[in-house]
Amino acid sequence: MLIYPPFTPVIAALPVTVPFVGPEAQERKSGAKFRARMGANENGFGPSPRVIEQMVKAAPDMWMYGDPDNHDLRTAIARHHGVSIKNIVIGEGIDGLLGLLTHMYVEPGATVVTSLGAYPTFNFHVAGAGGRLVSVPYENNHENLEGLLEAVRREAPQIVYLANPDNPMGSWWEAQDINRFIEALPQTTMFILDEAYCDLGPATILPAMDIARPNLIRMRTFSKAYGLAGIRCGYAIGEESVIAAFEKVRNHYGVNRMAQIAAQTALEDQDYLDMVVRKVKAGRDRIAAIAAENGLQPQPSATNFVTVDCGKDGAFALNLLNALLARGLFIRKPMAPGLDHCIRISVGLEHEIDALAEEMPGALEVARAL
Amino acid sequence: MLIYPPFTPVIAALPVTVPFVGPEAQERKSGAKFRARMGANENGFGPSPRVIEQMVKAAPDMWMYGDPDNHDLRTAIARHHGVSIKNIVIGEGIDGLLGLLTHMYVEPGATVVTSLGAYPTFNFHVAGAGGRLVSVPYENNHENLEGLLEAVRREAPQIVYLANPDNPMGSWWEAQDINRFIEALPQTTMFILDEAYCDLGPATILPAMDIARPNLIRMRTFSKAYGLAGIRCGYAIGEESVIAAFEKVRNHYGVNRMAQIAAQTALEDQDYLDMVVRKVKAGRDRIAAIAAENGLQPQPSATNFVTVDCGKDGAFALNLLNALLARGLFIRKPMAPGLDHCIRISVGLEHEIDALAEEMPGALEVARAL
Repeated sequence: MLIYPPFTPVIAALPVTVPFVGPEAQERKSGAKFRARMGANENGFGPSPRVIEQMVKAAPDMWMYGDPDNHDLRTAIARHHGVSIKNIVIGEGIDGLLGLLTHMYVEPGATVVTSLGAYPTFNFHVAGAGGRLVSVPYENNHENLEGLLEAVRREAPQIVYLANPDNPMGSWWEAQDINRFIEALPQTTMFILDEAYCDLGPATILPAMDIARPNLIRMRTFSKAYGLAGIRCGYAIGEESVIAAFEKVRNHYGVNRMAQIAAQTALEDQDYLDMVVRKVKAGRDRIAAIAAENGLQPQPSATNFVTVDCGKDGAFALNLLNALLARGLFIRKPMAPGLDHCIRISVGLEHEIDALAEEMPGALEVARAL
Repeated sequence: MLIYPPFTPVIAALPVTVPFVGPEAQERKSGAKFRARMGANENGFGPSPRVIEQMVKAAPDMWMYGDPDNHDLRTAIARHHGVSIKNIVIGEGIDGLLGLLTHMYVEPGATVVTSLGAYPTFNFHVAGAGGRLVSVPYENNHENLEGLLEAVRREAPQIVYLANPDNPMGSWWEAQDINRFIEALPQTTMFILDEAYCDLGPATILPAMDIARPNLIRMRTFSKAYGLAGIRCGYAIGEESVIAAFEKVRNHYGVNRMAQIAAQTALEDQDYLDMVVRKVKAGRDRIAAIAAENGLQPQPSATNFVTVDCGKDGAFALNLLNALLARGLFIRKPMAPGLDHCIRISVGLEHEIDALAEEMPGALEVARAL
């Protein structure tokens, strides 16, 4: 019999779970390429041409490690937000930063509050740290601020997580609601405010920058509006000494050199960003129209995806999803109770939305017949 | 007074330390660019032209997340080593994988054995997990296999770490020595065999692939011989169920898309690798000759750097290092007792080694006068 070096008790107790199955795995399984890649909230309009130009120019330099301080990128981000470089830490996407935060704040048995059906990768990291997750159901397709506050008061958790705008529902809260939530939190609970999609919604959802508050970390990414999901670059904005603590645990050379260059250039091209945001809005409107034409209920969205209420139960929505997948459309759906009657369609390129328009009636027919 | 959400006790107790200061930070401080970048064991010959071509081609596709399974790259690596894809996990450099391994095996208070002065980033991750590090001094500029074994027998650690070839000394053990070490280890201690530099040394140092052994993980990287440090891609080779356990903790989308493409292409161009390895050997010989001409003792090396015994104490070696830095040469030195009489010079391009030859006599003069 093989004897294994023992894992820590937390790791030994964890199942081998994968938060998401990638579209490539699905393509390998089916043996066919998707016609439309609208499942991972990627941004098919892609990065700015200036970003591509800089990546091309930088390719031969990839023998050099990236600057472990991410100095130039942090400087550019700090200027963009009108804060200090000391308020910014860069990570391998928001996912990487969420992993670090759970490492910093969650020990085995510690409590973390989130919404039931919110970002699974955050839950994955909490589980990896041995944390205990308390989940508050959504209310009317919104994360329930009052419910989250009640859970926080009851549980006194290490962390409370909220995405604004929300994924997977696309809903949002206005800045004043978020601010009231922040004011009501106990100072001993860290609030992770995930704003991955914030560039794609109305400006009124963004609270003013408060970098004096030691229990607030805001998360941003170059994966969504900036069209750079593949390059892995996100950042956190927070109070100086909280940001400094990341130095204790982060993989100092983890943010690749190409990402630093691409992200910095992307930030400089705000005109391109504005154009992409307009295109995303137009795409959202088209997807919503297609859903409505087919008798489904598109939900309002402040993101680059439209969550569509399929009007029946989770099994029906799953059947519809599978029918769309079988027709070559990569789309995903929320699986949590309360959200599982929906499918989630990322804004794709025109020909991808065309494919959705073409395939939706047939897919619905299949789902209704099951 | 500000109230902060409490860190875990392990994190709260850690100092804010940085394993390495990057050359960019030194340049920012001095206000001048280095003439020669020979401090981080990067490979200035760079990646294969085919790799650059593929990176250029892939730049516009960076809006897509990378395949979270790293399927194609793992398949290529598995084929390269004659093992299964199930024996391979990809990470954000070896550094990233070392962080995951400490997460998996080290809980607060657990013991880890390494050599005194060996890879600081590993120690950083052990500290981040709250581990207790037991360090065995080098012997004759080699990691001390017998000493490590004694420590393992005495301490029954979770992990024992060894780099072969070694960094920072450049020394190595032959495969049969490594095999004897492996055979002597208790099955409950995980052996991390860091082979980051193995492509640059004699083939005789590499044990045959043993992917049945549950307490052996071998680490490889595209940062050194393959010239892709900036892209962040390393991998671990190990027994199937050990590799599967990484799924519990790894950042599934952490390995960027560009890295997957670049690494796979790099692996395919073994002719280019062979050429680079020849150039690195020639560069090593030249650096060794320059050191010897200046009355210093270059150490034999199986890596892309030459560690040079400066013949006096640590203070003298540090003075020499500082004099070389002041002359625009980015070089590093080991700081641990027993190794600190040395400086470590990475193989650079011809003009960089020229700069070393030019500046060494003057730098030595300065160091001797202090």
